[in-house]
Amino acid sequence: MGRKVAIVGVGHSRYGLRSDVNIGELAWESIRQALDDSGLDQKDIEYYIVSSVGGWSSEYLPAVVVGEYSGLTPKGTARVEAACASGSAAVKMAYDMVSSGSVDIAMAIGLEKMNESPTPIVVEFIGRAGNYFWEFHNFGLTFPGYYALYATSYMDRYGADEEDLCRVAVKNHFYGARNPKAHFQKEVSIEKCLSSRYIAWPLKLYDCSPITDGSSAVILASEDMAEKITDSPVWIEAIGEASDTANLSKRDDFTYLRAAREAAEIAYKRAGLENGYNMYKYFDVAEVHDCFTIAEVLAYEDLRFVEAGRGIELIRDGETYIGGKIPVNLSGGLKAKGHPIGATGVGMVAELTNQLLQRVEKGRQADIKNGRAIAHNVGGTGHYAYVTILSLSKP
Amino acid sequence: MGRKVAIVGVGHSRYGLRSDVNIGELAWESIRQALDDSGLDQKDIEYYIVSSVGGWSSEYLPAVVVGEYSGLTPKGTARVEAACASGSAAVKMAYDMVSSGSVDIAMAIGLEKMNESPTPIVVEFIGRAGNYFWEFHNFGLTFPGYYALYATSYMDRYGADEEDLCRVAVKNHFYGARNPKAHFQKEVSIEKCLSSRYIAWPLKLYDCSPITDGSSAVILASEDMAEKITDSPVWIEAIGEASDTANLSKRDDFTYLRAAREAAEIAYKRAGLENGYNMYKYFDVAEVHDCFTIAEVLAYEDLRFVEAGRGIELIRDGETYIGGKIPVNLSGGLKAKGHPIGATGVGMVAELTNQLLQRVEKGRQADIKNGRAIAHNVGGTGHYAYVTILSLSKP
Repeated sequence: MGRKVAIVGVGHSRYGLRSDVNIGELAWESIRQALDDSGLDQKDIEYYIVSSVGGWSSEYLPAVVVGEYSGLTPKGTARVEAACASGSAAVKMAYDMVSSGSVDIAMAIGLEKMNESPTPIVVEFIGRAGNYFWEFHNFGLTFPGYYALYATSYMDRYGADEEDLCRVAVKNHFYGARNPKAHFQKEVSIEKCLSSRYIAWPLKLYDCSPITDGSSAVILASEDMAEKITDSPVWIEAIGEASDTANLSKRDDFTYLRAAREAAEIAYKRAGLENGYNMYKYFDVAEVHDCFTIAEVLAYEDLRFVEAGRGIELIRDGETYIGGKIPVNLSGGLKAKGHPIGATGVGMVAELTNQLLQRVEKGRQADIKNGRAIAHNVGGTGHYAYVTILSLSKP
Repeated sequence: MGRKVAIVGVGHSRYGLRSDVNIGELAWESIRQALDDSGLDQKDIEYYIVSSVGGWSSEYLPAVVVGEYSGLTPKGTARVEAACASGSAAVKMAYDMVSSGSVDIAMAIGLEKMNESPTPIVVEFIGRAGNYFWEFHNFGLTFPGYYALYATSYMDRYGADEEDLCRVAVKNHFYGARNPKAHFQKEVSIEKCLSSRYIAWPLKLYDCSPITDGSSAVILASEDMAEKITDSPVWIEAIGEASDTANLSKRDDFTYLRAAREAAEIAYKRAGLENGYNMYKYFDVAEVHDCFTIAEVLAYEDLRFVEAGRGIELIRDGETYIGGKIPVNLSGGLKAKGHPIGATGVGMVAELTNQLLQRVEKGRQADIKNGRAIAHNVGGTGHYAYVTILSLSKP
């Protein structure tokens, strides 16, 4: 209904332990790439949104710090947070700002420098992203624990096992090894994953995404402007969003994420796609929120690539590798590329833009036939969910 | 260019020390009022944005906690933060979401429960909202200190004195005493303000806004929907936004806030208002960001009600009381109504909606002739600024 919106430039820092840079420098790595990619200058950016959860250091309010360092002052700005889905929320806000006509060009910048805090503090802090008062404070639930509830429930109902989950890790490390921006660039074997230590049964070390520093940026422009800026715009066809209860105790089924399912349904509806299964057929490639291996399997089903309970078959049968039904997380995913939480959703959109434009590294480039890609980004344990559909064709 | 957007319901909690409620209950006070005001139900709200700086308690990610308590689950959500301008940033995001056609109805909810932390912690935390690394950590600047730099610079250049600043406090307490939702509901005399203790010279205790808990909510709807929902829509005519450097050391003039001036210019341009002085003539009433008394004087000038250096005359001459050129902060302002930082910007919009609809308490209702009102909301020391223009006439 509003104006059509296209991605005209993307940037993506190296993810990993980034003690070599401060937050301004880390953000600038992505901002500079996105500006170069689009051929735009800072003065062309009319609004910039920073997605960051923060709290890892004493610099609590990063938006203006990033803006000053990157030369974006005096443009309007705010920070957006939706836990680990913050990046997608920022892309959505920037999308609406351009679509409404408030501005012609906006930038979403994802940023997180988690390793400024010691690991136990980070783990504690992330644990609060469920419901602090009822579940973290009273029961000590941390995020591996939360997702372990989903893993055991899924395994019990559908007969999946720990080896199935490790297959997700093996795939994502396989592609991470081919991505020079990934946190982990080494393949892992199924044996190595299976023999790694338990973090929260049945999830082991290699079932978990790491604590990562990184940034990412995308520049969005209105139709008129996009066609002036670039010959290869990637269009945002639709974004769907939903939430779920803060308390997991108020959810009645732990084999799917209700918010992700709802967000996918909204995105599909807005994109005018049918409401059924086998939705993978519309897409060439997907980036999904594999904060834990079980989460990738849930994503296959919540996105209705397949019916409930059959997601595990996709990974068993290798259907989410290149050449399969729907290649997933060719970046390495949260699992191997890393999960700098505020940057993750923006990074997914940057990666998929590069995939659609066929400019990622050899060995991890999807075949582009439909010209459509999908990003699935979850905050908390499905507390927030955003699903973003990108397309080479103007919607 | 996008769809027209109207306010169809507002809510505003009692501001103050609110140890009687938790964050969910505090938010619900406003949400319930806004729903009642609009005649809508939770299911009608398609997206809700929570503006909150947070960090006062262990519940760091309040959006879904508020959503669950208020029955807004499973609607899409995110938190927006732009320091003390967070509320206006949230209104802007909700505005763009409706204007773009992504949703027909969105809610912006402002929330802050600052007194969960002890006062010294709050003061320290707020102090970081400038630039932590360079200015807080190295020089120990806190917010009264930051604004004292502006006060001394203004006093030096334009000949204002401490009594002039206290006049702002006297006015805002005068109106706060007439607002049953204000944190402070007592008038103060000029003598009491002048004899109060110094916090950061020349700013004294009564020059400073308090540490406040509170919430506020506004429901925005598209033109079609607004006209179905209510006979008395209040339209958002324009929003302007800007930022400034994180480091105050990179600013060259401390007699105005560059971001506020820029945000006003953008808002006036978007509303199609001329670019000159005496802009007060377009408005019946204003809410401005008087976190310190000097900030209200700067607002008069940054909004171009009068020329630089002449803002102080407005307060000296009583022109910002009812009956004067432009009544300002008839709610009591941040100074007396209080400043629950994430709630403040949303609360300004709620207050001005009630003013335009002539439904505030006797003794603090502005005369409504132009049918237009303006909100001026600053984050940090002009690190962020948002200016929002409301109108009874459809733009």
